[in-house]
Amino acid sequence: MEKHILYTTEAVNQDGLNGQSFIKTGGLTVTVSNPLNNKPGTNPEQLLGLSLSTCMNATLQAIEREHGLAHTAEVRVTVTLIKEENFAFLVVARVRIPGVPLKTATKLVALAKKRCPVSKLLSGSSYYQVQVVEDY
Amino acid sequence: MEKHILYTTEAVNQDGLNGQSFIKTGGLTVTVSNPLNNKPGTNPEQLLGLSLSTCMNATLQAIEREHGLAHTAEVRVTVTLIKEENFAFLVVARVRIPGVPLKTATKLVALAKKRCPVSKLLSGSSYYQVQVVEDY
Repeated sequence: MEKHILYTTEAVNQDGLNGQSFIKTGGLTVTVSNPLNNKPGTNPEQLLGLSLSTCMNATLQAIEREHGLAHTAEVRVTVTLIKEENFAFLVVARVRIPGVPLKTATKLVALAKKRCPVSKLLSGSSYYQVQVVEDY
Repeated sequence: MEKHILYTTEAVNQDGLNGQSFIKTGGLTVTVSNPLNNKPGTNPEQLLGLSLSTCMNATLQAIEREHGLAHTAEVRVTVTLIKEENFAFLVVARVRIPGVPLKTATKLVALAKKRCPVSKLLSGSSYYQVQVVEDY
């Protein structure tokens, strides 16, 4: 299928975990730090969680609209740093759609998991899960 | 293998692409907007690029150290929004390690691709690539 390019952005890191990461074309610059020390700054775990939660909820908003529903979905993503042989991240997205039956919510979330671009990128990993919840 | 939990964080989105996403435990709050309009704000593409570039370069920094090398690596990640049947992201990480031969750089980057937690999450996707470059 033909690919239409709609938007492209470039992120740059020179400093590793202690310094800054930035968008090359201007815009966001973030101070980053190692999550295992107490220095101020964000980190790859938080940035990935923000990316996925935003992407998944934007996708859900479109799906809600297609189904004639108001947007009520909320997405919370936990990213957990673990140490096995090396470091790894466990990513769990928990989705709540108040005001629709759980069965409907489960169907909408399954659609979003397959359609959200960030979710699609992660879907080959056994360390990525999506859950539907009634309450947080 | 036993999993040791070292750190966990939770990102929340209620607004979709037009509003804010935030870290629940305090810290980063970002204004987000649709990359296809001109409103100020970041987006899932930028946040994913920042996450991967930071994570990959922190991993490279550790690998450089293990090889007795100074940290010179730089990581630039392009994230491109495309439209096929649905939306998708193409993710390309371009790594430059000035001061080491290309052959050595290629070996170090291959190690980082397999070890960086964000890279591991993306590695099941055909839309994720890592390239070694001599110049940007």
